[in-house]
Amino acid sequence: MKTCYLHPHKFSKVMKINRKKFFKGLALATISTPFVLRTFIGKSSAQAGDNQSPNVITNKKYKWKMVTTWGPNAPILGDACSYFADLVEKLSNGRMKIHIYAGGELVPALQSFDAVRNGSAEISNGASYYWAGKNPAFQFFATVPFGMNTQQLTAWLFQGGGMELWRALYADYKVIPFYSGSTGVQMGGWFNREINSIDDLKGLKMRIPGLGGRVLEKAGGSAVLLAGTELYTGLERGVIDATEWLGPYHDYLMGFYQIAKYYYSPGWHEPGTALEFSINKEKYEALPKDLQAIIETATYQAATWFSTKMEAMNAEYLQKIQAEGIHPRFFPQDVLDALKGYTKEVIDDLVQSSPDGAKVYASYSAFRKKIIPWSNLTEKAFYNRLQSSPDNG
Amino acid sequence: MKTCYLHPHKFSKVMKINRKKFFKGLALATISTPFVLRTFIGKSSAQAGDNQSPNVITNKKYKWKMVTTWGPNAPILGDACSYFADLVEKLSNGRMKIHIYAGGELVPALQSFDAVRNGSAEISNGASYYWAGKNPAFQFFATVPFGMNTQQLTAWLFQGGGMELWRALYADYKVIPFYSGSTGVQMGGWFNREINSIDDLKGLKMRIPGLGGRVLEKAGGSAVLLAGTELYTGLERGVIDATEWLGPYHDYLMGFYQIAKYYYSPGWHEPGTALEFSINKEKYEALPKDLQAIIETATYQAATWFSTKMEAMNAEYLQKIQAEGIHPRFFPQDVLDALKGYTKEVIDDLVQSSPDGAKVYASYSAFRKKIIPWSNLTEKAFYNRLQSSPDNG
Repeated sequence: MKTCYLHPHKFSKVMKINRKKFFKGLALATISTPFVLRTFIGKSSAQAGDNQSPNVITNKKYKWKMVTTWGPNAPILGDACSYFADLVEKLSNGRMKIHIYAGGELVPALQSFDAVRNGSAEISNGASYYWAGKNPAFQFFATVPFGMNTQQLTAWLFQGGGMELWRALYADYKVIPFYSGSTGVQMGGWFNREINSIDDLKGLKMRIPGLGGRVLEKAGGSAVLLAGTELYTGLERGVIDATEWLGPYHDYLMGFYQIAKYYYSPGWHEPGTALEFSINKEKYEALPKDLQAIIETATYQAATWFSTKMEAMNAEYLQKIQAEGIHPRFFPQDVLDALKGYTKEVIDDLVQSSPDGAKVYASYSAFRKKIIPWSNLTEKAFYNRLQSSPDNG
Repeated sequence: MKTCYLHPHKFSKVMKINRKKFFKGLALATISTPFVLRTFIGKSSAQAGDNQSPNVITNKKYKWKMVTTWGPNAPILGDACSYFADLVEKLSNGRMKIHIYAGGELVPALQSFDAVRNGSAEISNGASYYWAGKNPAFQFFATVPFGMNTQQLTAWLFQGGGMELWRALYADYKVIPFYSGSTGVQMGGWFNREINSIDDLKGLKMRIPGLGGRVLEKAGGSAVLLAGTELYTGLERGVIDATEWLGPYHDYLMGFYQIAKYYYSPGWHEPGTALEFSINKEKYEALPKDLQAIIETATYQAATWFSTKMEAMNAEYLQKIQAEGIHPRFFPQDVLDALKGYTKEVIDDLVQSSPDGAKVYASYSAFRKKIIPWSNLTEKAFYNRLQSSPDNG
């Protein structure tokens, strides 16, 4: 059995956000409602359409179900799913409608991949590291600590063989992945104490999932399992000393600035997390060729919308957080360097225990090695040499 | 009359690349062939289709002409146009075919915008700064010296009001712009001498178009007009002392490494140039709604292909250039700082002489001011603090 690198509650990162609505909805949210909405979709769901030629257009209608790992009305994350569904309907001239289920509505959030795999939903939105329990190699398609940022990762996925590897690994599950945007470099998290040296992480109880949590443990900390709904009070009451989340926009909505003084950058554990649409292979291949193309192309527009929206909203909410008196600081460099050393151990473990992990990492790290000199010559030089800066980062 | 900020030969930046093919094709390329291919498209070109409803799909066929500012077979740039045309044909199930004309085939490259405006072509691929002679404000949608990089610019375009301004300004010409990808941060150019101080730019004859050329002139240099076809011999024979081009991939194919010793970074004059598809508004609006959506969505996929391809190929060809013994260096910081000062003067001139320029710059600079602290906290920190680097840029 493969090691599970995944926190079961990682998904809850984006469960509900507005704290007022959140507490109101809490009772409801804890009631399991996995199947009540299933009857929404009739039996006329996706079926084969194989008589396509360029001159024949059928009016056959498709109704698809999208399950997601996000909570109801999750800002930007859920919005991107609606944006995608609306777009597919428009592009297909109404031939395809996609109904979206938040995590827990049709199936529990972390069963989204399996729901697509077994055909109870046609498509899901989430991130590949949520399924790392199935194959730890999946994590390279989302993000790994001290790995590539968005620009580098997308170059690898689309032009460096990454997507081909991703699709080959998901094919074992009869699922096809599509890139659906990136969070950009995340923040390093909220702390109730200053981090001045690597020793300050010893005994630190932090909510940090996945490989980042394993790295923290190598530094002597504890990676704590807490659902998103429990974070605010957990941090307030000292159940945890720190938590990572996403970036200023989502973090602000969670209210962390009210209870934690120290907001650290950069998110060494998630330097640009790629999200995914995953689609049941059989259902997809049964679609007319033009509808297949429509779905794939729509993922690109949704991805651009998502990535740019994250940047714009984080920029805006960074100002709001600063207006609350919280001024983000950088982790000391020796702390980052130590964490980077532990990350190497964690990745080495992964690669040694997983042949798929070794194969994907070989491609990932070769591309990374090739693009770093180019990134340093251009993007890094842009930030350091061209861009005037009120915030000398 | 507005000041023309545009070099008439900027487009030739990407005219033909492979030097052998290039010289063979030269005689032919100098023959003007603007109209010989016009008859390719019959009279059944784009017409209105206004009886659309979600349940009615017509089989009406559309044949569109795409004119471009790129030379025949321009690597990546021309490829992206073919990629887009193939995609639209697939998405539309063959209802739309787009025939592509390189610059000079149907109309001269720099008349692409006018060809779309007057309907002799439905769509063009190029960059908005090529039409800066019509309105200097257009340049902000492509790139300006010391301006935003790709990540920042796309956030402004898609989420910060940039696209709305772009479309409003092009509407005066009954043309609709769509973003079609970015070159990323370009290189600063090839020089036959070392640049150690701002005084080394005095008297320097450099091929550098647009606002960058005006900045160079403020520093005492000469911005020289030379077509891409004349650059290699011009640099070899001392007609010019320096030339900028794109990045390692296109620069390598031009052979500059054979004749210029000094390759400088970063491309302060083009920190991430956005390309565009421009479409005749009347022809576009006459399409069925789903075809309109298909075209728009296809631009996103083509843009992603283009931007990631540029990154991947530049990373690869940086190695090839280094293997030829050319090791890129950075402009001294005081040179960049001086150029930044001159850039402020050039932008001030633009803004003061152009009400549209003032309006667009107000939005551009407000967004830039907001996103810089966020970029510094995350992307800049990624490069400086997380990414180990063999090239300490």
